Amino acid sequence: MKIKLLHSTPLHIADMAIGKCWNKGCMQTEEKAQERMDRVANKNKHASTIEHLNYNFNIDGISRACLQELARHRIASLSVKSSRYTLKELKNEDAFVNEALSRYILDDEMKQRAQKYVVLTEYEDVNASIVLGLECLRWCIVQGASNDFAKYTLPEAYKTSLIWSINARSLQNFLELRTNKAALWEIRKLANEIYDKLPQEHKFLFSEKIYKEEK
Amino acid sequence: MKIKLLHSTPLHIADMAIGKCWNKGCMQTEEKAQERMDRVANKNKHASTIEHLNYNFNIDGISRACLQELARHRIASLSVKSSRYTLKELKNEDAFVNEALSRYILDDEMKQRAQKYVVLTEYEDVNASIVLGLECLRWCIVQGASNDFAKYTLPEAYKTSLIWSINARSLQNFLELRTNKAALWEIRKLANEIYDKLPQEHKFLFSEKIYKEEK
Amino acid sequence: MKIKLLHSTPLHIADMAIGKCWNKGCMQTEEKAQERMDRVANKNKHASTIEHLNYNFNIDGISRACLQELARHRIASLSVKSSRYTLKELKNEDAFVNEALSRYILDDEMKQRAQKYVVLTEYEDVNASIVLGLECLRWCIVQGASNDFAKYTLPEAYKTSLIWSINARSLQNFLELRTNKAALWEIRKLANEIYDKLPQEHKFLFSEKIYKEEK
Amino acid sequence: MKIKLLHSTPLHIADMAIGKCWNKGCMQTEEKAQERMDRVANKNKHASTIEHLNYNFNIDGISRACLQELARHRIASLSVKSSRYTLKELKNEDAFVNEALSRYILDDEMKQRAQKYVVLTEYEDVNASIVLGLECLRWCIVQGASNDFAKYTLPEAYKTSLIWSINARSLQNFLELRTNKAALWEIRKLANEIYDKLPQEHKFLFSEKIYKEEK
Repeated sequence: MKIKLLHSTPLHIADMAIGKCWNKGCMQTEEKAQERMDRVANKNKHASTIEHLNYNFNIDGISRACLQELARHRIASLSVKSSRYTLKELKNEDAFVNEALSRYILDDEMKQRAQKYVVLTEYEDVNASIVLGLECLRWCIVQGASNDFAKYTLPEAYKTSLIWSINARSLQNFLELRTNKAALWEIRKLANEIYDKLPQEHKFLFSEKIYKEEK
Repeated sequence: MKIKLLHSTPLHIADMAIGKCWNKGCMQTEEKAQERMDRVANKNKHASTIEHLNYNFNIDGISRACLQELARHRIASLSVKSSRYTLKELKNEDAFVNEALSRYILDDEMKQRAQKYVVLTEYEDVNASIVLGLECLRWCIVQGASNDFAKYTLPEAYKTSLIWSINARSLQNFLELRTNKAALWEIRKLANEIYDKLPQEHKFLFSEKIYKEEK
Repeated sequence: MKIKLLHSTPLHIADMAIGKCWNKGCMQTEEKAQERMDRVANKNKHASTIEHLNYNFNIDGISRACLQELARHRIASLSVKSSRYTLKELKNEDAFVNEALSRYILDDEMKQRAQKYVVLTEYEDVNASIVLGLECLRWCIVQGASNDFAKYTLPEAYKTSLIWSINARSLQNFLELRTNKAALWEIRKLANEIYDKLPQEHKFLFSEKIYKEEK
Repeated sequence: MKIKLLHSTPLHIADMAIGKCWNKGCMQTEEKAQERMDRVANKNKHASTIEHLNYNFNIDGISRACLQELARHRIASLSVKSSRYTLKELKNEDAFVNEALSRYILDDEMKQRAQKYVVLTEYEDVNASIVLGLECLRWCIVQGASNDFAKYTLPEAYKTSLIWSINARSLQNFLELRTNKAALWEIRKLANEIYDKLPQEHKFLFSEKIYKEEK
């Protein structure tokens, strides 16, 4: 997966928002501003004060399995590559595999070709299934099926891409739930990458929510 | 698919809500109440007055392709059968197909068995692909893959089930967009069934939003 | 203030929603259902499972000061008695007070008359000001000012009335913040009354969020 | 009132979001990008594609009457000067008026002093009431009433200040409802000023929603 932060609201807007409640201005140093934001928004649970901060991400190459989970976070906006409009991208591909499931072995070259379209895992059996699923999809497209029907054969490993926008309060909730060890491995990786890509000076807002192995 | 309306807020709550704004009570007849709701909430765009009405549906047997679209409607709540927790349901199934894609023909018995798990279409090529995709998934499970990896081979035709709750204002938006002829065939069918299952006396709130072929 | 629960979603809908995730049905006893809801929605933070529960309240006689705070809870729906449409209710009232602020004493009869329209406090100085503010408003109306201008003289003690609908997840947040000792006295009272009026069998979902003096 | 746009998301983020759906990139000219945004988001009702655009405003000097309406728009974030924390600002003011309502005339100097704290109207009767309401509040504060009780005498003309953040889709709804001739005069003025302060190149997204007298 490839995550890029496209834009974010400057941190001082949240500082202004907090100052506003008490009719006070911004804090004079960045350090004091951060201390006040952490105290008011996090410790004192006045969480709406950080809703003013918005982040726009370009997320590329996550699976549609991961998208199923990502889309459950409803205080966020997402514009996703549509399978209904784009599946014809497979039309000129050669077959990914020609054999029945029980009879073929996935080699490195096959994997390489497939990875343009699907997320592979660390398990070869699963990968073999995914690539055959991809072939089922390709075959349908080549047979002339319309995207609206061919899409029913999409294996959920199929890669997608989206613009995702979320405010800091909702992102706290996302990061807390999705960096947790109980989360699906791929969304956990996504959550950690999202955190990594945040502007350095915004990270203190989220660091307490990030699950750390050693805790 | 099987849709069941589990519960809905009585219509007179919206009538009370509208009366409240003008410090008036409820209307004296159901007919007058409906006329006022239509005028205030729909024609005069005071749409928040019908947010008080909530509908809880049990939705069974839609595909995960359809779920991808359904989950984009964010002012709604959904609790979905989790593939992470339930894929073992395939463990004791026999193979759904044993041949390579190009060599087999899907017969009625195979389709019947598969339909317990996947949504089939009116196109035999697509169905053949879907059933082979299902077999890829079953095979992974039988090989002992954990659900968190096997789920990447799920064909999006795979059936799911959910409890879906939505208020009347958000449902208007859903029905307008998803009964439209530009909508995906399955969600269009879902939207029409949702409308059919609404309490008879609530339907007037939505009838203008429903796309009709003859329009 | 007078709070009335008008309608609520049956508790078993949330039980069904939780069962759905694991493809299990409802629990067989109410006790087991409650234990599972508390564990999944509260302890395991799968909070979206209780969004299916909605509550519709009639709230009568809170001040517009309290409404200012109530309206900040945005995952809720409210239909409020409009000052723009209803201020003429003061037109036929006699003067509430005829003297300058420094010269009059509020007696019990004056208070009684005023309380039809305003929330009074335990402080006589404040009450004297409120009643004079009410008189300013009445006087404007009697002079023929339109509601859209007269409303600028409304003292925030002025009573209002609304239909308020909220789901269980958002209500948890409301009760946690507004039963807290740091909350404004009137909304704290409102929050406690809202809790009291919940269906008995729903209360366990919220009891941990309620601030208790002795904690 | 004084409105300042503090920050906004660059317009091309919405263009990227739209391109994403079809797996196409951004448009090559600003003009084509605007044409595509208008077609997809507005005409084709794919409104979620402009939710990626967020605007942060500083709004200063609107009345709490206007705030009551502004806070009803729930897909927005607001951090407001709190009367509970700031009413002591009146403590060192001299009396605004010393007479009973029926006996005094508001002169220009009195109005000038009062306008630091309250929104005045074009009607002298209303203004007289507002200023007396302000005096009731000041008097309470001077008598030593705590803000939590004194605030009940606040006339709704009392000025407030806030940071307000809203996305483009929700702002369309706000501007459509609040520039309408049926809207309260002050929020109508606010809505028009908000529109004026938008970045020039964003305005085409909203221009169809703005009510124009001549229509």
